Amino acid sequence: MVTKQEAAAAVRHAKVVTGVTWAQLAQAVGRPLAWTTAALLGQHPMSKDEAATAAALLELGEDAALAFQQQPTRGALDSAVPVDPTIYRLYEVIQVYGPTVKELIHEQCGDGIMSAINFRLDVQRVPDPAGDRVVITLDGKYLPYQWE
Amino acid sequence: MVTKQEAAAAVRHAKVVTGVTWAQLAQAVGRPLAWTTAALLGQHPMSKDEAATAAALLELGEDAALAFQQQPTRGALDSAVPVDPTIYRLYEVIQVYGPTVKELIHEQCGDGIMSAINFRLDVQRVPDPAGDRVVITLDGKYLPYQWE
Amino acid sequence: MVTKQEAAAAVRHAKVVTGVTWAQLAQAVGRPLAWTTAALLGQHPMSKDEAATAAALLELGEDAALAFQQQPTRGALDSAVPVDPTIYRLYEVIQVYGPTVKELIHEQCGDGIMSAINFRLDVQRVPDPAGDRVVITLDGKYLPYQWE
Amino acid sequence: MVTKQEAAAAVRHAKVVTGVTWAQLAQAVGRPLAWTTAALLGQHPMSKDEAATAAALLELGEDAALAFQQQPTRGALDSAVPVDPTIYRLYEVIQVYGPTVKELIHEQCGDGIMSAINFRLDVQRVPDPAGDRVVITLDGKYLPYQWE
Amino acid sequence: MVTKQEAAAAVRHAKVVTGVTWAQLAQAVGRPLAWTTAALLGQHPMSKDEAATAAALLELGEDAALAFQQQPTRGALDSAVPVDPTIYRLYEVIQVYGPTVKELIHEQCGDGIMSAINFRLDVQRVPDPAGDRVVITLDGKYLPYQWE
Amino acid sequence: MVTKQEAAAAVRHAKVVTGVTWAQLAQAVGRPLAWTTAALLGQHPMSKDEAATAAALLELGEDAALAFQQQPTRGALDSAVPVDPTIYRLYEVIQVYGPTVKELIHEQCGDGIMSAINFRLDVQRVPDPAGDRVVITLDGKYLPYQWE
Amino acid sequence: MVTKQEAAAAVRHAKVVTGVTWAQLAQAVGRPLAWTTAALLGQHPMSKDEAATAAALLELGEDAALAFQQQPTRGALDSAVPVDPTIYRLYEVIQVYGPTVKELIHEQCGDGIMSAINFRLDVQRVPDPAGDRVVITLDGKYLPYQWE
Amino acid sequence: MVTKQEAAAAVRHAKVVTGVTWAQLAQAVGRPLAWTTAALLGQHPMSKDEAATAAALLELGEDAALAFQQQPTRGALDSAVPVDPTIYRLYEVIQVYGPTVKELIHEQCGDGIMSAINFRLDVQRVPDPAGDRVVITLDGKYLPYQWE
Amino acid sequence: MVTKQEAAAAVRHAKVVTGVTWAQLAQAVGRPLAWTTAALLGQHPMSKDEAATAAALLELGEDAALAFQQQPTRGALDSAVPVDPTIYRLYEVIQVYGPTVKELIHEQCGDGIMSAINFRLDVQRVPDPAGDRVVITLDGKYLPYQWE
Amino acid sequence: MVTKQEAAAAVRHAKVVTGVTWAQLAQAVGRPLAWTTAALLGQHPMSKDEAATAAALLELGEDAALAFQQQPTRGALDSAVPVDPTIYRLYEVIQVYGPTVKELIHEQCGDGIMSAINFRLDVQRVPDPAGDRVVITLDGKYLPYQWE
Repeated sequence: MVTKQEAAAAVRHAKVVTGVTWAQLAQAVGRPLAWTTAALLGQHPMSKDEAATAAALLELGEDAALAFQQQPTRGALDSAVPVDPTIYRLYEVIQVYGPTVKELIHEQCGDGIMSAINFRLDVQRVPDPAGDRVVITLDGKYLPYQWE
Repeated sequence: MVTKQEAAAAVRHAKVVTGVTWAQLAQAVGRPLAWTTAALLGQHPMSKDEAATAAALLELGEDAALAFQQQPTRGALDSAVPVDPTIYRLYEVIQVYGPTVKELIHEQCGDGIMSAINFRLDVQRVPDPAGDRVVITLDGKYLPYQWE
Repeated sequence: MVTKQEAAAAVRHAKVVTGVTWAQLAQAVGRPLAWTTAALLGQHPMSKDEAATAAALLELGEDAALAFQQQPTRGALDSAVPVDPTIYRLYEVIQVYGPTVKELIHEQCGDGIMSAINFRLDVQRVPDPAGDRVVITLDGKYLPYQWE
Repeated sequence: MVTKQEAAAAVRHAKVVTGVTWAQLAQAVGRPLAWTTAALLGQHPMSKDEAATAAALLELGEDAALAFQQQPTRGALDSAVPVDPTIYRLYEVIQVYGPTVKELIHEQCGDGIMSAINFRLDVQRVPDPAGDRVVITLDGKYLPYQWE
Repeated sequence: MVTKQEAAAAVRHAKVVTGVTWAQLAQAVGRPLAWTTAALLGQHPMSKDEAATAAALLELGEDAALAFQQQPTRGALDSAVPVDPTIYRLYEVIQVYGPTVKELIHEQCGDGIMSAINFRLDVQRVPDPAGDRVVITLDGKYLPYQWE
Repeated sequence: MVTKQEAAAAVRHAKVVTGVTWAQLAQAVGRPLAWTTAALLGQHPMSKDEAATAAALLELGEDAALAFQQQPTRGALDSAVPVDPTIYRLYEVIQVYGPTVKELIHEQCGDGIMSAINFRLDVQRVPDPAGDRVVITLDGKYLPYQWE
Repeated sequence: MVTKQEAAAAVRHAKVVTGVTWAQLAQAVGRPLAWTTAALLGQHPMSKDEAATAAALLELGEDAALAFQQQPTRGALDSAVPVDPTIYRLYEVIQVYGPTVKELIHEQCGDGIMSAINFRLDVQRVPDPAGDRVVITLDGKYLPYQWE
Repeated sequence: MVTKQEAAAAVRHAKVVTGVTWAQLAQAVGRPLAWTTAALLGQHPMSKDEAATAAALLELGEDAALAFQQQPTRGALDSAVPVDPTIYRLYEVIQVYGPTVKELIHEQCGDGIMSAINFRLDVQRVPDPAGDRVVITLDGKYLPYQWE
Repeated sequence: MVTKQEAAAAVRHAKVVTGVTWAQLAQAVGRPLAWTTAALLGQHPMSKDEAATAAALLELGEDAALAFQQQPTRGALDSAVPVDPTIYRLYEVIQVYGPTVKELIHEQCGDGIMSAINFRLDVQRVPDPAGDRVVITLDGKYLPYQWE
Repeated sequence: MVTKQEAAAAVRHAKVVTGVTWAQLAQAVGRPLAWTTAALLGQHPMSKDEAATAAALLELGEDAALAFQQQPTRGALDSAVPVDPTIYRLYEVIQVYGPTVKELIHEQCGDGIMSAINFRLDVQRVPDPAGDRVVITLDGKYLPYQWE
């Protein structure tokens, strides 16, 4: 009986041992890069085939493959405010620009939200002469407040 | 003596009274949309001219214009975890995908972060037959951990 | 310049003074009971007409009517865990039955959520010989996790 | 010696292995769906027969059956504010509508609460041409504040 | 417009100025001592007559009397864990004896709770040769967990 | 080496297995019911004889008996605000009536506290035609603030 | 209507303006130094005479004198963990030596506490060739756990 | 590999088994009582000889002796606010008298602190006809704020 | 009656209005740059002359000058973890390097601390062809743990 | 499978057993002292050679060497506010001088931050006749807020 958290730890370890990359895992599984990464870190359930493919590539056993298929209880941070600097910068963006994003969603779309469920995410390194950039795209369906 | 927080509240009120939009304010000020919104919400300092232009358009006085120019103490959330649903979805994205973003930055760039200082943000409504989408782009310089 | 919170406090006070009920307010405004109550407590924006009607019935001024129309920053609790016993029981339900609801949504619908945006709420007193009951109905659109 | 939490984890695992559903478990046990789910997740004590039936269906041992019968210390969330999005939406409903529910209980019933002890819960998928809905019904006895 | 909190502060001040006691207030109002004290501290709504009687005795105005009649949002502590030593001792009792009380309620009554709604409280000074004692009686209806 | 917490868990388990009640344990040990319960839950140290008697009745070993005798580090709640509904109601009583109790202690006794050290507790089921009641008696020595 | 907190702030200000010391205040009032300081900072009630004497020396009005006499709700820290370095060192002492103090009280006295109610405190500057020392004496009655 | 926390737990257990007191340990080690207690509870590093002497007296092995010598990461409380009543009273003293101590240090010594590093602590039972007292002495070097 | 916090806000405002710099203030006052800045932000008491000089340069009144001289209750952050990015980076340094600093202090000096009381701080911009650097120097007296 | 945290604990233990110092480790690895210390405490990834050298010197196995090479999830404190006095003093510096540092960075460099990524740290014992000093140098690249 392996939990999704234990499976995620096994994935990180197996990546170091086997040298397999997230990109290779995504290609093998046939799903987008960020989705595959999130799924193997325990945030999305995989199909049986996806799980088997990923486990094989990572040289992990059946227990891990089973864990990959389970319905997750989502939430990946150790504390309410993340401490790791790479993740903290995302929190800093919300602290500084959260109300800005809210104002612009309301101005452009009305009273509603960007869905985090009907949602996809992409992370890209973009070459730039002044220093390469990390571009993160959050792309979610607009959901208007709708009562009736 | 008007604080940047009081000035931001005055901006929100003046927008309702005058009907001026963030887009009009950005155009008048001659800066990007999200930057202008963030600045008027108290998260960036404006130049004297920018401040005067924005204050005039919003029919606000000199006190507000002065506040727009002050150096901010940044941070716009009322609590560590935001409560407003439109802003909360951004936090949910970090909870679910924060470690995914970290893994992909490290795989694509190495040991480092996306800067939140050398950084720009964009919010767009993107038409989609299955329902329009909100696309938020976080675009920051890659900063490698560098000791020497 | 009256905030939505100040307007909500004025509504509560005016209800005691005028004796107007939430039911009468909802009927006058022409919207569902719970929506109207939430809107006047500062959680939804009203149209200009709705705001004017409610303000008139409550004998409140233009300032309140203007506040009713503003876009809210939502979130009505004073602390993360509510203290008032009538509200706390809702929190207790999440503490005891939250994972049960999650399991049943997943079993009946798949990997997704009940939307709290495309959502309506109803509160009813239901007569019962063993003691009348309060029945609260949460009714939200099912949103499946959807990446592509 | 198996705790109710360990038994609940064993139940989740056994459901994946055996393919047994909450609906089948409820039918076998002869209790309502949500009650049975909550009980097997450690939030209600089962009778000896109920426990034996559930354990048999899930192919779990005597230890689990014993745990199902124990008096629970209730409370199923990992943190004061739930992180998993499916559960968080329930918390968001309290944040946005908690005071609304309180006002309506007081207007319809007087000064009191909806009991969370003399209480039942139901979760239903309701077909809807605009997208199926999740309807959660909270149904508790009205308890008036009563001193003498 | 006086809030229940402001009215409670006015009561405390008026008690010092007028020398009126909680006992005299309770007798004048014709309700139990602890109920009357709690009500005037903003935790219970009073009837119009009760409010008028109490306000008159305390030489407070109509505003206070109106506040006494309003439906309270209950909860009287400044922080989750009380700091004042007289109140803290009650919290210490829960920390040391909370699970003991739970065990004894379950052994004597079954799976349920002592209601804090259908509930009364009494505080008595009891003479004792080894030093007088404070005896606090919590007396609430037993409510069994009842689903159907 | 068994901690008092582990011994308390062993007691709860042994009670289910042996069917021994807290009342029987208290009678065998020759101490009051609530004291014995609290002691076996790890909140009071027992004498060697008391510990041996209780361990024997519960069919527990020498390790448990040793743990029963150790000086406790008191405090039995998992979190600052208890989550289990049966225990939470005690916390709710403090939230609603804490300042009331403080006022009445001061009015009846002066500036001081009810001791939680020179203290005893009793829990009783009291028959009542309108539904049986749980009566909890907190009985502590009055301690005046005394500097010199 | 002046609260004890406002009176305490007025005392600090009056001390700067008048140059009166805590030692002079204690001597005038005729009570120990630390008691008088704590009382004027809002942590103990003064008698009418003590309050009048202190108010006169500090050139404060009747309102302050009245506030000095009121029953305090005690607790003087702005946050659970004090931030000011002079006060923080006391907290650090508890963090490092709290369990040591507990062990020594139990070894020397048995299962009980040092009372913080029947208690006095003294702060002394003690000359020392290696640098003068601050000696703080906490002196409270030993209270044994006593049930019957 | 035994941590200082594990060694501290072993010390407490060994004291019960062997009956050795803190006073005997301090005498054997040749250091003050409170220092020795704190050191064996993991808050100070011991010399090799001190560690060997203490381990021998407690009939503990080399692993424990090694742990006694390690540099501690100090801090002995399980939570920011201690729960055990014997330790809590120290926290209560800070809550009630912390600002009093600060005022008196400043009045007697100037702008500075009592060091908690160049510091010693003593706990004494002092006989008293009105009930014995616990006297705790905090004795630290006065450190003035000194920039240059 | 102006508090040190209000005086600090007045200083920030006056700096914008008058254009006076921290460097000019430090030079006029005749104290180091960082000390003067901290003092005017309410973290150190100034002498009467220093206060008068600073107030005059900033065109502030006597009230501010009086506040500058008062003994501070130190602590300048709005929350336990700072939110402003410029200040947060200092917190991040502690999160990542705190234990490193501890290890190196112990290796180089023994069991003790860097004093934050006998302490000075400097902030310098240091030109660098690869981008100028901010160099912050923390310089405190080494204090060994010393009991006797 | 050894985590970086477990490897860090093994390093601390091995240092005591082998007597190897951080300085010797840094020299062997050929990297700066503080970097090497931080890396071995789990805050930076090492190259394969660096990891092998350090593991050999500390007489640790391959598992530790592998852990030294892994990408860290940074953050070394056990709680948001550090408790160990040696580390706490750094936090105290931020509490007292954080806004001072912010003001001076802005005055000397403009609106920006000191990078904690392009950053180095040094800890030195500096002899001083009035008592040796600990000098900690934080040296990070200045990063201006830059949108376009």
